[in-house]
Amino acid sequence: MSPLSEEAKAKITQSVADGFDEQIAYTQELIRIGGQRGHETDVMDWVFKQYNNRGWNPIRIEMDEGELSQHIGAGRFSETHSRVPIIIGTHKPKGEAKGKSLILNGHLDVVPLGPADMWKADPYSGLIEGDRLYGRGAGDMRSGAAANVWALDALRRIGLQPASEIILQAVVEEESTGNGTLMAHLKGYKADAALIPEPMQEQLVRANVGVLWFQVEVRGRPVHVREMSTGTNAIDASMKVIGALREMEEEWDQRYSSQQYFQDEKHPLNLNVAIVKAGDWASSVPAWCQVDCRIAIVPGVSAQSAADEIEKKVADFAANDPYLSQNPPKIRWNGFFSEGYVLEPGSEAENVLRRAHQQAAGEELTTQTSTAYIDARVHSLYDKIPAMVYGPIAGDIHGFDEWVSIESVKRVTTAMALFIAEWCGVEEM
Amino acid sequence: MSPLSEEAKAKITQSVADGFDEQIAYTQELIRIGGQRGHETDVMDWVFKQYNNRGWNPIRIEMDEGELSQHIGAGRFSETHSRVPIIIGTHKPKGEAKGKSLILNGHLDVVPLGPADMWKADPYSGLIEGDRLYGRGAGDMRSGAAANVWALDALRRIGLQPASEIILQAVVEEESTGNGTLMAHLKGYKADAALIPEPMQEQLVRANVGVLWFQVEVRGRPVHVREMSTGTNAIDASMKVIGALREMEEEWDQRYSSQQYFQDEKHPLNLNVAIVKAGDWASSVPAWCQVDCRIAIVPGVSAQSAADEIEKKVADFAANDPYLSQNPPKIRWNGFFSEGYVLEPGSEAENVLRRAHQQAAGEELTTQTSTAYIDARVHSLYDKIPAMVYGPIAGDIHGFDEWVSIESVKRVTTAMALFIAEWCGVEEM
Repeated sequence: MSPLSEEAKAKITQSVADGFDEQIAYTQELIRIGGQRGHETDVMDWVFKQYNNRGWNPIRIEMDEGELSQHIGAGRFSETHSRVPIIIGTHKPKGEAKGKSLILNGHLDVVPLGPADMWKADPYSGLIEGDRLYGRGAGDMRSGAAANVWALDALRRIGLQPASEIILQAVVEEESTGNGTLMAHLKGYKADAALIPEPMQEQLVRANVGVLWFQVEVRGRPVHVREMSTGTNAIDASMKVIGALREMEEEWDQRYSSQQYFQDEKHPLNLNVAIVKAGDWASSVPAWCQVDCRIAIVPGVSAQSAADEIEKKVADFAANDPYLSQNPPKIRWNGFFSEGYVLEPGSEAENVLRRAHQQAAGEELTTQTSTAYIDARVHSLYDKIPAMVYGPIAGDIHGFDEWVSIESVKRVTTAMALFIAEWCGVEEM
Repeated sequence: MSPLSEEAKAKITQSVADGFDEQIAYTQELIRIGGQRGHETDVMDWVFKQYNNRGWNPIRIEMDEGELSQHIGAGRFSETHSRVPIIIGTHKPKGEAKGKSLILNGHLDVVPLGPADMWKADPYSGLIEGDRLYGRGAGDMRSGAAANVWALDALRRIGLQPASEIILQAVVEEESTGNGTLMAHLKGYKADAALIPEPMQEQLVRANVGVLWFQVEVRGRPVHVREMSTGTNAIDASMKVIGALREMEEEWDQRYSSQQYFQDEKHPLNLNVAIVKAGDWASSVPAWCQVDCRIAIVPGVSAQSAADEIEKKVADFAANDPYLSQNPPKIRWNGFFSEGYVLEPGSEAENVLRRAHQQAAGEELTTQTSTAYIDARVHSLYDKIPAMVYGPIAGDIHGFDEWVSIESVKRVTTAMALFIAEWCGVEEM
C-alpha cells in the first residue's frame, strides 16, 4: 500500500463533488422513507435494491435470537426488538486482492421523533436550509449509510473499483441492542478494518463506552388517595431507587476518573433516566412505575459485572427501605448489554485515514472519546480489527430538528473515497 | 313525619333480608358488565331497563359541555371525558306528597384496573368469598347503586311505596369530574334531601374536601445522552416542580390544620402524584414529561383560588430555575375543579338517618371527614339541601381486589329502606 498520487487524489475528490447532488438526493430519500424500530422493512428493501443495482450481491440475514443470546455482547431481546433482517453486500475485486479488505458499516434504524409539534418541519421531509439537511436520522446515521455507498460510487464514476473485498453492512438495532452488527459478526463476516461513518464531527473515535439498558419496576399495593398513608406511591418509591443509582453513577465516574481516554470527560458514564410510565388514574395512589434507564461503562468493564453491581445496588437499597423491602424492585435488562472498546493508536488503517482526512478537510484528524454506544465495539472486541468511527458534523442527534452539515458530508465522503482507494487499492472496472 | 312503628320496622327489615340474595346477584351483574370511563353505555342501558321495569320512567340526559362549562363547579373536560348520558328515574306518589322528597344518587363509573395480574381473580367476576364480594366497583359504588334500587324494592315487596317523590340519579364521571351529578342539577332536579350510598364504612360524611385534577407538563430541548449536560432531563425538571407543589401541600395542611372537621386528619389535602408519562427512548435525554396530579382543598376554599395558587407556585418556582425559566411548565386542568362542603349537623334528614342506622346496625351512627371527592357537594353547594353520604364497609377502593362487605350492604340497605319509609312516608301500592 502506498500513498495515492496527487492526480488520483484530485480525480477522486472531483468525482465525489460531481456526484454530490445525487448523493444528497439519495440521503433525503433515505430520510423520507423513515422506519421506526421494528418497521425498517421499507428502508431496508430500498437499500437492498441499491446494493443490487451496484452488483454487490446483497443478502438478507435474519435476527437469530437463539444464536444471539449465546453471545456475551448481545443486547437483550424485548418485545420491541426489530425482526427486520440486516443486509450484507459484497464487492469482490476482479482477481486476487491487491490491498486490504474493509467493512463499511452503517445503521438504518432511527430513534423516535418525540412530540411532532416540536419539530420545525416534518421530521421525514428531508428539508434543506443553507448547509443543513434536517430530519430524523439525518445525522444518525442515514447520511453516513449513504456515504458508504457514494464513496464507492465516486470511484466507479472514474472507472475504478476497490482492488480488495469490501463488505457493506446495512444494519438495524444499533440504537437499542447492537444486535444487527453482532449478527453479521456471528455469520463470519470479517475484514482487515472496519469504518463506520457515524456523525462524529469529523473526528475519529479513540475510545468508546459500553452501554446497558434496563428497566426498574416497582409494584405495590394501590389504594384510594384518601388512604394514601397506608399505601405507598410507586412513583416516589421508584425515584428513591433512581436516587440510589445516581449515587452509583457518581461513584463510577469517580472510580474511573483516571481511566485512559476518559480523564477529560466530566460525566462519561451518564445514567439517563429516560422513560417513565406510571399509574393510570389521578385519584388512585399509583401502584406501579416503570423507569427505563441507560448507563455507560468504560472499556475493560464487562457488561455482566456492571449489571451485577447495578442489581446489588438496587437490592441493597431496597433492603433498607421499609416499603421496598416488602415490594422489591425488579430490574429487567431490555437492550444494550455491551462492553466499550479502545481503538489502539498507530494502526496502518488509522494512518491511511489520517492522510485521507488531511487531504479532504485540509487539517489534521483529531480524536474523541465517545460516551455513546457505537457498533464498532463488535468489530473491535469480537472481529479484533481496527474499527474506525469517523463521520460528519451533525446536531440535535436524538432530538428535534436533527440535522447534518451538507458540506461536512462532502468532506467525509471524499475522505472515505480516498481512504478506500489507498487501503484497498483500486483497479480499473 | 313520625318515627316508624316497631311493626313497620320489623316488616321492612325482613323484606330487605327476603330480597337480599337477589340484590347481591343484581350487584354482581353490575360488576360483571364493567365499563371503564367513557364506555359505560352497557351498564347504563342495563340500569335504564331496571328503572323502566320498576315504573320510574327513566330518561337519559346528555352531557352538555357548553352548559357545564358555564358552571363554577364543573370538572374540566378532556378527551377522556365520558359522553355517556346520565339516567334520571322518578317515583311519584299516588296523590299529593305525604312526606319529604329525596334524591337517591349513585355513580356507575369505575376507575381503571391496573395490571390485571395483580388481582387474585378477574376484576369483573363478582367473586364472593365469605363476607366479601370482590370486583372493580364492588365498593365504589355499584353495591351502593344497587342498594338505591333494592331499598325501594324492599318496600314494594311488602306492598308499600314512598309517599313522596324520589329522584333516582344514576350518573357517570363521579371519579373524574363530578359532571354527571352536576348535569342533573343543571336540569333542575331537586328534592328535600339527598342520599348517596358511597362506601363510607357505615358512617355519615360530615365534611368533605374539594378536589382538583391537573397535569404538569415540562418540555425542553432533547439531546443525545452523550450531550446530556447541554440538555435538561424533563423528568428531573418535572420532579423539581412536584417538589415545589409538595411544599405547597405541606403549607396548606398547616394553614388549614385547625379547620373545623379536619383537625384530626393528618394529611387531609393529599397531593397525589398519580400518573407519569415521559420520554420514548432509553438513549435519549427525555425532552417531555407529563405528570398528572390530584390535590384536595378544605370546604370554603374555592377551586379557582386553589388553582390560582397552584399556578402561581409553579410559575414562581420555574422563574427561579435556570432551565424551567426558559421552558416554563404548563398546567392543564383536566378533571375535578370542585369545592368541598360540610353537612350541617342537626338536620331533620340526619336525625331520621340516625334512627334508621341505629335500628339496622344496632349502634349509633358516627360521622367522618372524607378526604376524597364525592358528588354530594353538588346537592350541598348548589341544590342547598342536606346531602348525606352513607354506605357500606368496603376495602381496597381503587386498588386490586376491591371488595365490599356483604353483611354491611344488607345493614345499609335496611337503614336506607327505613330512612325512606320515615322521611318520605309510605303508602299502599
